[in-house]
Amino acid sequence: MFSHLPQPAFVLVRPQMGENIGAAARAMWNFGLDRMRIVAPRDGWPNPKAVAMASGAGRLLDEAILADDLPAALEDCSFVFATTARPRELVKPVYSPEAAMKLAAQKIKAGEKVAVLFGPERAGLENDDISRANAIISVPVNPEFASLNLGQCVLLTAYEWQRQTQEIADEVIELGKTDWATGHDVEALVSHYESRLDEAGFFFPLTKAAGMKVVFRNMFSRMPLTRADVQMLHGIMRQMVRWRHKNDPGGDGPENGSGNAPEK
Amino acid sequence: MFSHLPQPAFVLVRPQMGENIGAAARAMWNFGLDRMRIVAPRDGWPNPKAVAMASGAGRLLDEAILADDLPAALEDCSFVFATTARPRELVKPVYSPEAAMKLAAQKIKAGEKVAVLFGPERAGLENDDISRANAIISVPVNPEFASLNLGQCVLLTAYEWQRQTQEIADEVIELGKTDWATGHDVEALVSHYESRLDEAGFFFPLTKAAGMKVVFRNMFSRMPLTRADVQMLHGIMRQMVRWRHKNDPGGDGPENGSGNAPEK
Repeated sequence: MFSHLPQPAFVLVRPQMGENIGAAARAMWNFGLDRMRIVAPRDGWPNPKAVAMASGAGRLLDEAILADDLPAALEDCSFVFATTARPRELVKPVYSPEAAMKLAAQKIKAGEKVAVLFGPERAGLENDDISRANAIISVPVNPEFASLNLGQCVLLTAYEWQRQTQEIADEVIELGKTDWATGHDVEALVSHYESRLDEAGFFFPLTKAAGMKVVFRNMFSRMPLTRADVQMLHGIMRQMVRWRHKNDPGGDGPENGSGNAPEK
Repeated sequence: MFSHLPQPAFVLVRPQMGENIGAAARAMWNFGLDRMRIVAPRDGWPNPKAVAMASGAGRLLDEAILADDLPAALEDCSFVFATTARPRELVKPVYSPEAAMKLAAQKIKAGEKVAVLFGPERAGLENDDISRANAIISVPVNPEFASLNLGQCVLLTAYEWQRQTQEIADEVIELGKTDWATGHDVEALVSHYESRLDEAGFFFPLTKAAGMKVVFRNMFSRMPLTRADVQMLHGIMRQMVRWRHKNDPGGDGPENGSGNAPEK
């Protein structure tokens, strides 16, 4: 009953101790989740300590998708949550685990691929990781004592997934089949804009360029972009570049004859 | 704010390993609970391993009420929940952690003293223990894999207590005062892009131009844009236009010296 339902992928980003990877697998499987992805584990892979700790949930480790970096791990995902204890100054919507898993359930029911990122034990997710997420999950812990470890954070999120999907199991949610952009699409869009804007001298002064790029990436990853939006945004940039390279400043019309109307 | 509220007592019944007692203290204090009772701990009391594991939550151990047996620990309690993985044949109401903590909150508000029992690591609560409870809490885990340990069971129950008693836990928390763009801002942005893209020949062929503008406007009005986003998007377009009007195609850097770093 449990594992055949569509479900979010839980992505462990640069996890350090094998024991914690194993504990995360157990926490997930307690609530019927079995799609684990692992990005650049510190001690390599496979990890015997993870296997020993996972015991009955070892299958999750065998089937885990290993990735070298976060963009590779998120290639097929259209909506990404990042868990963090301190939402800091990030301008992204912040959800409780409950609200996040409710939203995840709706999105998954509508055909989206959803991922939840969990950071490394000591430091948590970095700003660059978070810039690839659409929204934040923050567990509302005691402000005087926030000490959830990786396994506990996974446990609470998995628990809420199970709670939300049990509750909505009877409801019928018919969302239109929106063709959402995947992480891969957004990544390609950001790269396209970044390289052209670099050429055009947008990221200036140089000392602020790196920070500006994070702000820029954050903006696009926060937006609910469809594939058609992404196509249009690519088209806008392509046209601005074509226009720039045309010698006749007074001319108009694109250089190729295909036009810019989006497919949809 | 947290610990001065009336709250249930969490009663560890014959706990075995000190580490688990410490982990339970941490789990409780993460969600603002600090009334621990301990019945006949296997390794005596105080327990240095419990203290080491509790770290920042050590106060809970110092203040824990120690009892020789369960009746002594429950002397002042008017309503008792027992946590168990297998509610078995017991003729008692069985609650999810959520429903149980909702009921606990109501009873505590009405002046009752509520306790929650957690059994020893290996075997869980015995029938004799459960016979002293008014109701059962059972976490709805995966029937194929039920492996919550003591600390995890305490964590989920404490989390639900906090959720039931904090109204905002259900809501999306908007961190900080996000400075959202107004309709006026978005309108100005769309006009700016439209007129420049018109110049650049983006809306082509002419027969489709009106439809494309609608799609374009829809895209921006659908996005959760902040003022900073709008500024950045204006800046991108301004820079592309400056670049286009520069005569030296190999040059780089913006023409004005102010740079493009967003305000925030």
